[in-house]
Amino acid sequence: MSGRESEQLLLSKLCDRGAALQPQSLVITKIQQGYHTRSYADQLRRAKRLASALQRWGVRMEDRVATLMWNSGWHFECYQAISCMGACLHTLNLRLGQADLGYIIHHAQDRIIFVDANLIQLLEQISPSDLATVELFVCAGSDGEANQWKSSQLDSRKTIDYEAFLNSGHEDYRWPALADSSMMGLCYTSGTTGKPKGAAYSQRSTYLHTLMICGVDQLAISSREVVLPFVPMFHVLSWGIPYALLMTGSPAVFTSHFTDPGAMLQMMMDWGVHVSTGVPAVWQTLRQHIQSTGSLAAVQPKMRLQRLVCGGSSPPATLMRWFLDELGVEFVQVWGMTETNPIGSVARRIGKVTDLEKGVDDSFNNVKKAGLPSPGVEVRIAQLDDLSRDVAPGEAGELLVRGPWVIQEYYEVDASEKFFQGWLITGDVAKIDEEGAIIISDRSKDVIKSGGEWISSIDMENAVCAMPGISLAAVVAVPHPRWDERPVVVVILDKGVNTEGLLDRVREHLSSSFAKFQLPDDVLVWKEIPHTGTGKMDKKSIRAKLEEQQYILPSLRTSKL
Amino acid sequence: MSGRESEQLLLSKLCDRGAALQPQSLVITKIQQGYHTRSYADQLRRAKRLASALQRWGVRMEDRVATLMWNSGWHFECYQAISCMGACLHTLNLRLGQADLGYIIHHAQDRIIFVDANLIQLLEQISPSDLATVELFVCAGSDGEANQWKSSQLDSRKTIDYEAFLNSGHEDYRWPALADSSMMGLCYTSGTTGKPKGAAYSQRSTYLHTLMICGVDQLAISSREVVLPFVPMFHVLSWGIPYALLMTGSPAVFTSHFTDPGAMLQMMMDWGVHVSTGVPAVWQTLRQHIQSTGSLAAVQPKMRLQRLVCGGSSPPATLMRWFLDELGVEFVQVWGMTETNPIGSVARRIGKVTDLEKGVDDSFNNVKKAGLPSPGVEVRIAQLDDLSRDVAPGEAGELLVRGPWVIQEYYEVDASEKFFQGWLITGDVAKIDEEGAIIISDRSKDVIKSGGEWISSIDMENAVCAMPGISLAAVVAVPHPRWDERPVVVVILDKGVNTEGLLDRVREHLSSSFAKFQLPDDVLVWKEIPHTGTGKMDKKSIRAKLEEQQYILPSLRTSKL
Repeated sequence: MSGRESEQLLLSKLCDRGAALQPQSLVITKIQQGYHTRSYADQLRRAKRLASALQRWGVRMEDRVATLMWNSGWHFECYQAISCMGACLHTLNLRLGQADLGYIIHHAQDRIIFVDANLIQLLEQISPSDLATVELFVCAGSDGEANQWKSSQLDSRKTIDYEAFLNSGHEDYRWPALADSSMMGLCYTSGTTGKPKGAAYSQRSTYLHTLMICGVDQLAISSREVVLPFVPMFHVLSWGIPYALLMTGSPAVFTSHFTDPGAMLQMMMDWGVHVSTGVPAVWQTLRQHIQSTGSLAAVQPKMRLQRLVCGGSSPPATLMRWFLDELGVEFVQVWGMTETNPIGSVARRIGKVTDLEKGVDDSFNNVKKAGLPSPGVEVRIAQLDDLSRDVAPGEAGELLVRGPWVIQEYYEVDASEKFFQGWLITGDVAKIDEEGAIIISDRSKDVIKSGGEWISSIDMENAVCAMPGISLAAVVAVPHPRWDERPVVVVILDKGVNTEGLLDRVREHLSSSFAKFQLPDDVLVWKEIPHTGTGKMDKKSIRAKLEEQQYILPSLRTSKL
Repeated sequence: MSGRESEQLLLSKLCDRGAALQPQSLVITKIQQGYHTRSYADQLRRAKRLASALQRWGVRMEDRVATLMWNSGWHFECYQAISCMGACLHTLNLRLGQADLGYIIHHAQDRIIFVDANLIQLLEQISPSDLATVELFVCAGSDGEANQWKSSQLDSRKTIDYEAFLNSGHEDYRWPALADSSMMGLCYTSGTTGKPKGAAYSQRSTYLHTLMICGVDQLAISSREVVLPFVPMFHVLSWGIPYALLMTGSPAVFTSHFTDPGAMLQMMMDWGVHVSTGVPAVWQTLRQHIQSTGSLAAVQPKMRLQRLVCGGSSPPATLMRWFLDELGVEFVQVWGMTETNPIGSVARRIGKVTDLEKGVDDSFNNVKKAGLPSPGVEVRIAQLDDLSRDVAPGEAGELLVRGPWVIQEYYEVDASEKFFQGWLITGDVAKIDEEGAIIISDRSKDVIKSGGEWISSIDMENAVCAMPGISLAAVVAVPHPRWDERPVVVVILDKGVNTEGLLDRVREHLSSSFAKFQLPDDVLVWKEIPHTGTGKMDKKSIRAKLEEQQYILPSLRTSKL
């Protein structure tokens, strides 16, 4: 049937839809003096003007056009213009250090960077050689910040005002015909090991991902709801939400740099937000804000919030309980990676027909899982030491995924060790439970192998943290000549807690849920535990620190005496 | 990026999902003695066995394997097995006459026909030469009917029992790798003009359609709901619902040949059905059944019905009002064609955020429209006499559509007149209203052109039908030497209605909503109005009958006197 259905899966075909069906629906951005609003119809006209300006500049298919911007209507326009015209939207993470940022810009060979005025100083710190490919800086900003850049140290011959640049294009521009295999977006992973690596997405990849996440069992993005995408637009295309919004024309609320919980809460109330996205810490902060200001009773009648889409780590049941009881809000948990564009699986409170009769507390358990693989995503659990073999059903192993929006290679770098026969090696240790849901138990590089058996560091950390007096715990592997590796617990104690007999108490506490051979050999009390830039405990640094200290396991010390 | 994301969009990747995630979810079929049930896990095993049996028989990629079956778990297995193994599922319409059925089987060159025992007589009536390509009849049936076929007139050397055939395969069969451009399904249109034409769907077409219809603003098929697909599985793949069910694993209820409203109602109550699909006449019949049996009060507490997906024609507001008030059921209206696989647009009661404040009655208006184009479907309204030109916004014209699941040619027949520069010519006259919704006003072959202006026959029929005493009205064009065409109304009157001054009364009634030049030249009172096999008024026959009667318009008669 080749050629009979030659319709290419292009984002321009989806992204014109919202403006056509809901031309008066609003794109809202928080600014200093209230809100900036623009209709979807206007946004489409401006996006075409912007695409036309890029075309006139000489931007060609798959050329990298970068953004270093907050979540805003202007960033949203860039999403639409750059990827619908066939160029490659390269979103720069404004939380990165100058070295990584410079490396990424240089590696991607960005030709143009759209930058918010209040972020220009990040570019000024980058070595000029890393910016060698950049022909133009397009400086955006509201609140009168737009002119700040004029005093910047960037080469003034290479800078232009956003509106001036946009107005160099014309709005009767038409989206081009493209091959749907062409690259529409590029995001770099902020891995703790080695240089950042780019995950490139094709038109087809993001088109399919957009259709999928609007599924009623997925993120259910609907034209009938107001959405506040809190996840940064520089973080895996904000989980794909902007493209879903362009498709549905749902009213969209963007925070710009006003990301504190008080500002967010006000936006939710002002615009009747139904859905938002973010990591659990964000919702924890929102809850704390409401509680500490004592504003719950005032907030309740003004909130229309229905769902919080949550990713990154599992939300605590107490958090979900509070939001459900006080605000009637459901948590939807997602699992994914930069490499999966990013949604791979979704967990909802009530996942199945057979769960409908279950009590509410029981079904919070579902949301703590990574959830059910999304349609189109295939999952394998492979043996950690032999990826060609599946584990037995229900056992834990290396999580491998593939599907039409899962990358099969990194951008312009050889990293074949991250793939196995067409499957992405996620680096997560996971199992599939009896409900078909994925449960992540560890990062595969952090799992501990002792005497041929695996010990989950995350399970042990959670168990240790549940002990009174312990505020944080990390479990790492320490080499052992006979058992290969043995688990050691590093803890931060609450003030005034007695360390006497701590190892025995920890082993005693763990013995109810861990086998004897799995119990830790040692407990170390530290003042702080190193974290990565994205807020995760940095196990690699912990292991390096122990090595630096020439740490030896107690059992080995004894034998040497 | 070619080759980086080489994942083909294969139905087998979606259809294994339901069984994996909801293995114990049920596939339910009504049988004489109650219900036959089977789990999705069992169904998948059986589908693989069936696919393996087909492979052993020598069925190759894209070979046509036909079904002549009621909606049932067995038919559902055939859907899964035939299309996931790479063969082409050709569903035969059991309402067709023997000549059309024979033509279609012969044209498609079906190699195997799966047939329900109680439908075998339909095959017996077909000319043997039309069955020349058929190597095997696989005879299915429950209720002890399975053996009826043994006394049939079909060549006994070519017949085999369904279970015996299935058991010739093995369940450790693996779905093959395929090109997603390969043909997975074939449905013939039952057009009133010319021979039936086949619309062939690729793996990719149906994969995308399946993802799309599960969208929350589309048909919202969810793993959390019980679905009774009432639309026949021989009618455009039952609107694509079976593939959505295989993907979600939602409990599925099939009626088999027990299609009367009493049986359907019982199934809905017995299994807690949430969603069903059908034409308005089906829901009208269900309502009449409940009303005439006086069972509403008994039915209400047992019904979990949430939505009725409705297509074919607009449901009357009174029908929607009754279902909403008495059973809390929402109508979802869809527009589509065999050529669009089939969903092209969807109308919901509350379509937009801006409608949320509207009253309920107002928003029923939305559901009478064909609705908002589904994501991925592109729509053009072209001038009826020059398809290369768009009409002005809001005006009516020929509806053209294209998209990844819209065919671009018919199967093995030249019908290039049905396409225009890659767009499908739907044959519908439509306009796009201020909300972006499609409103169908006529079939383009039925629209009337008078003095260079267009008159909608459907609008006029609806207006005439609203007059007291008129039970049915058809409006057709009659040739006129000066004005090209003039409208003539054919009516059926209620018993005892006086025909005196009828033309004047009709013109008077229409004058509030039609221009003077649009008012009909004549009103003819007939005892019956011819209908097509699918229940639509047959305008072609009406025009033929007038010609046969050598009908002349009154104004022309006068001038000849």
